[in-house]
Amino acid sequence: MKTLSIDLGPRSYDIHIAPGLLDRAGEEIKKVCPKAKRLAIVTDANVEPLYSARVEDSLEAAGFDTGLFTGPAGEGAKCATHLAALWEAMMEFGLTRTDAVVALGGGVVGDLAGFAAATILRGVDFIQIPTTLLAQVDSSVGGKVAIDLAHGKNLAGAFWQPKVVLMDPETLNTLDDKTFSDGMAEVVKYGCISDREFFDFLVSHPSRPEIMANIEHVLYTCCDIKRSVVEEDERDTGRRMILNFGHTIGHAYELAGHYEEWTHGQAVAAGMCAALRLGLDLGVMDSDDGIQALTDLLKALGLPTQIDCPWETLVKAIGLDKKSEGSDITMIFLKKMGQALPTKMSKDAVLKHLQAIYGR
Amino acid sequence: MKTLSIDLGPRSYDIHIAPGLLDRAGEEIKKVCPKAKRLAIVTDANVEPLYSARVEDSLEAAGFDTGLFTGPAGEGAKCATHLAALWEAMMEFGLTRTDAVVALGGGVVGDLAGFAAATILRGVDFIQIPTTLLAQVDSSVGGKVAIDLAHGKNLAGAFWQPKVVLMDPETLNTLDDKTFSDGMAEVVKYGCISDREFFDFLVSHPSRPEIMANIEHVLYTCCDIKRSVVEEDERDTGRRMILNFGHTIGHAYELAGHYEEWTHGQAVAAGMCAALRLGLDLGVMDSDDGIQALTDLLKALGLPTQIDCPWETLVKAIGLDKKSEGSDITMIFLKKMGQALPTKMSKDAVLKHLQAIYGR
Repeated sequence: MKTLSIDLGPRSYDIHIAPGLLDRAGEEIKKVCPKAKRLAIVTDANVEPLYSARVEDSLEAAGFDTGLFTGPAGEGAKCATHLAALWEAMMEFGLTRTDAVVALGGGVVGDLAGFAAATILRGVDFIQIPTTLLAQVDSSVGGKVAIDLAHGKNLAGAFWQPKVVLMDPETLNTLDDKTFSDGMAEVVKYGCISDREFFDFLVSHPSRPEIMANIEHVLYTCCDIKRSVVEEDERDTGRRMILNFGHTIGHAYELAGHYEEWTHGQAVAAGMCAALRLGLDLGVMDSDDGIQALTDLLKALGLPTQIDCPWETLVKAIGLDKKSEGSDITMIFLKKMGQALPTKMSKDAVLKHLQAIYGR
Repeated sequence: MKTLSIDLGPRSYDIHIAPGLLDRAGEEIKKVCPKAKRLAIVTDANVEPLYSARVEDSLEAAGFDTGLFTGPAGEGAKCATHLAALWEAMMEFGLTRTDAVVALGGGVVGDLAGFAAATILRGVDFIQIPTTLLAQVDSSVGGKVAIDLAHGKNLAGAFWQPKVVLMDPETLNTLDDKTFSDGMAEVVKYGCISDREFFDFLVSHPSRPEIMANIEHVLYTCCDIKRSVVEEDERDTGRRMILNFGHTIGHAYELAGHYEEWTHGQAVAAGMCAALRLGLDLGVMDSDDGIQALTDLLKALGLPTQIDCPWETLVKAIGLDKKSEGSDITMIFLKKMGQALPTKMSKDAVLKHLQAIYGR
């Protein structure tokens, strides 16, 4: 078992990575929640038939009473209506302040369950058992939990750190290729923003079987990079913004496709390529070393490197439209492959170079 | 102006008490939220016509853009539906992470607005302008915010400290006598649990005009007592329970009256009298000194000293019913007037003495 410790003072916790960890969830949770009697397991309709029985068995063997709360699969579950239903169901279950909530699933489940844990009875302990690659390398580290509003994604939420994160890489075997690739975009991002060696490792292992043969190393490395960023900036007011590399332009692509045409990872993949071109054009990036390797890697992983997007959507998503405040904007570029560089510059300059790239 | 500083490390804040402070709200908020541009003022239909224009004028004079969010008056506003509507309205208003939410009203407004502030965009700054006596001495100090669920009151919420609390005692002049008395029950509670001198002061000033003639002293003393308790136990895991003196049995009365027949303060007043009788009977209290004075004081303030309650409701609200876990219970009694004493004892003993008192 690989273990990574996240140091956030009184909110510190461990991430454990091991094949078959699902079946040892009960004993691991017992260590961090010794007072808990009841555990509310939140999952979704996709994950429940695959893994809930194993997790329930393990928790019950460790002496916990369990309740299973299964929502619909997909982003739609992250809404105020489901949150309120979950609150009521947890009270009906008899949850107390010394009990805990367990998220079993992908990022949507983690976000919804985490926000419910942060707020039910003004906050109870929370355990993450992420079952998708995206959730394992991204959303289960950092403590950001949220639901979507009609006005946009992740607009109501909290910072609520888990007591422990249990990653069983074997759960990745049941992901379809598209969902696996979705997570790989974030994996590649970590190499781009902070670890050239890891980036080169990915370039030399550009397929699902090669990644899975080294999955513990991959998960550990990604979580370790996110750890170093989150420890420095728990509440996302500075350094943490480098995690958004590829996300600002990627967000435009998600919007343009109404969050249906492109997955988050697909949008981020193409967003990283666009950010690189823009950074190079603006003179922020020292050389084009690694750009071709990135493009080839993303293609090998089945991810897009370019997405068409209406000009107005692009400009608005980046925050370059007239309505957005201030004359400057901070963009996340790379100084070189493996090193992110948040860059504050005038919106006019960004707009000019963006127009050149997009031929406007 | 009287100022009380609440020391909670990075979450420290001041409480300012001064007549006419409503008209200086803008400048005070400017000091603690220098980056804020937009302020979302949350209020209710009772308070809005009385005070919102003055507060808006003051905030706008200080350079803020203001949005006014007026909900219905009464406990019903503290629900998931209103919370979700408030989230959406705040986003429509254009609130950003550096902006803030202002609660203008009583405890319900403070709880709802505070929970919205704790969660919108994963938490923005929060300012309390409490306008009822209960909110000024109780709910605006301590950082507990929440909404009600179908399963009970205050079941979903957060700990979210304000950046500043602005108390204008002149707002108390528009309260009806019943609402004023409602707050006085909590005022008397502070004397009972921790300040015999203050208790004696109240005994010698047992009317609304006498209290109002000394209102800054009264508000300051109550908030100072709550401060000392909250500083020691911000997240309500120990010492803070002494604030519940009279509340456990009072809760039974509120339940028995379906939260309609008795106000919170009325239930707490009778609850304190019952807790005193029980503590004396159990031998926790050293002498009956002060009990008659308390009864006389509550009566003079127009508060009940005894409330009829079905036996089953009483037993369940205290947690003595078979369904509640554990064989022991911690009750808040007084060792003597002016000194609370949390007392862990067997449920059987409490039940036996309760039966004797209630003639069962």
